[in-house]
Amino acid sequence: MTDDLVARLLDGDKRALSRLLSFVENGYPEGREAMKALFGHTGHAHIIGMTGPTGSGKSTLVGVLAREYRTRDRTVGIVAVDPTSPFSHGAVLGDRIRMQELTSDPGVFIRSMATRGALGGLASTTSDVTTVLDAAHKDIIIVETVGAGQDEVEVADTAHTTVVISVPGAGDEVQAIKAGILEIADILVVNKADQPRADITAQQLHAYLNLNRDEGWEVPILKTVAIRGRGVVELADAIDRHRSFLETSGRLEEARRHRARRQLLALAGEELLSRVLATAEANGRLDELVESIAKRELDPHTAAERLIQADG
Amino acid sequence: MTDDLVARLLDGDKRALSRLLSFVENGYPEGREAMKALFGHTGHAHIIGMTGPTGSGKSTLVGVLAREYRTRDRTVGIVAVDPTSPFSHGAVLGDRIRMQELTSDPGVFIRSMATRGALGGLASTTSDVTTVLDAAHKDIIIVETVGAGQDEVEVADTAHTTVVISVPGAGDEVQAIKAGILEIADILVVNKADQPRADITAQQLHAYLNLNRDEGWEVPILKTVAIRGRGVVELADAIDRHRSFLETSGRLEEARRHRARRQLLALAGEELLSRVLATAEANGRLDELVESIAKRELDPHTAAERLIQADG
Repeated sequence: MTDDLVARLLDGDKRALSRLLSFVENGYPEGREAMKALFGHTGHAHIIGMTGPTGSGKSTLVGVLAREYRTRDRTVGIVAVDPTSPFSHGAVLGDRIRMQELTSDPGVFIRSMATRGALGGLASTTSDVTTVLDAAHKDIIIVETVGAGQDEVEVADTAHTTVVISVPGAGDEVQAIKAGILEIADILVVNKADQPRADITAQQLHAYLNLNRDEGWEVPILKTVAIRGRGVVELADAIDRHRSFLETSGRLEEARRHRARRQLLALAGEELLSRVLATAEANGRLDELVESIAKRELDPHTAAERLIQADG
Repeated sequence: MTDDLVARLLDGDKRALSRLLSFVENGYPEGREAMKALFGHTGHAHIIGMTGPTGSGKSTLVGVLAREYRTRDRTVGIVAVDPTSPFSHGAVLGDRIRMQELTSDPGVFIRSMATRGALGGLASTTSDVTTVLDAAHKDIIIVETVGAGQDEVEVADTAHTTVVISVPGAGDEVQAIKAGILEIADILVVNKADQPRADITAQQLHAYLNLNRDEGWEVPILKTVAIRGRGVVELADAIDRHRSFLETSGRLEEARRHRARRQLLALAGEELLSRVLATAEANGRLDELVESIAKRELDPHTAAERLIQADG
């Protein structure tokens, strides 16, 4: 059955794509089989991470950027990791109308990720989802994240180009963004740039970048008004320029190796643990150790060592 | 050296506590040794998770709640996991003044967590940090998280009592909160309750709770104005009531076993992977496999299987 689904997906069948994504997200064995079969068909898509706080107009920007790519004849996959994204649910009416244009376009595929209980972690599942979309011939894959917390930073880490979105604010917004997320930006966007203080926000970002210069690539700071489509052509151009930079500088290769290593270790860790678990659950050893920890007779580190030894 | 630090921590030495927390956060062997030695001295503290979006006044509420507990003669540990929390850095002036009162109190210990690059994941490290604070005789430990993303939900999972904070809004806030975080609440707080629409927000939360009833514990919905200290006595009372419920209903025991299991598996997984890695890095097998994946000759799942086999 997996073979059939894989063949249909490679053939452009949208329902096969949806089905395979569900397998992957739920951690079913069929998903794993499919991933193996699909992997050789990947490596073509450019993966863009779009990261910004709730209220930054991020989803609207993702939408207009997707439309811009469609006018450039490129197919688009959108993966919404933010639970508050209108691409996930809870869209307000205006967003819903704008999104209808996208969802009725056969060249666009939108997938929202459950942000809880993803087997093997959200970052790993998102990475698998982009792989499936890549095999399904999407030229551009946009991963939308809220950009708070380690988990989201790791999700952004699966992208080739990371766009960090901020909005004009009272000054402390940039401060907040700095804590963890600004340093992963390849492109900075000040959205809602028709609001007062947009220039001040851009200057603050500029000052920050001067302190944290990356050799080779100068992070552009772009101003957009997503809701009016302003600045979106420039954003798509900047993303394309970054892609070219990655290719010519050897960074794309480097990132591929980095990503391969991360995926390999995550999968090996999951597999190892599930093997130990299978044994320890069957012979009751797991319950014994859990009980000892709960009663504070044994600390978790020592218990973990014993769990592993019991298997070896 | 670890023995000495542990002895000093148990003796109430604040510097030994800071030092041990650094070891734990950085994943040093000394941290692990200390965790083993400290574990038998834990189980006393009540751990409270305080979760809410940026701008909900969460940090202010954490601060006034901590002060309320101090008037009740209980020692308090605060763990800030939100990178935008004033307990971490980037505090605006008003917050800084309010916090000075707390930081100069020897009965209060504040620790901010790096939200990136925590070895073994943020949830696991936060769990270890609460264990150390527990051994350091803190009666109450408050873990402050931004409550977005799976990672933060897992952090909240280490708490005995989870308080979810929302603010009066345009209606879609509750919608946003619903996605993933509301179902883990033991207590709901509508902060900034002096704003219009506070009652509507409370009603919406109430309607939501009616659909998701938990047997035994009725989730209270409290209104607070943290900046004026309003509703904080009621919040502390509700948390104490929840603690009593956990004890008499057997839920505390259940949660202990659940937490023990989670910790055990996380630690075992880390340890197993680090063993495989040590071998595979030494003999060059890891680099080979990474290269094969990067060149798309081998899919990550198959590579992970080979990595594990090479070790066995």
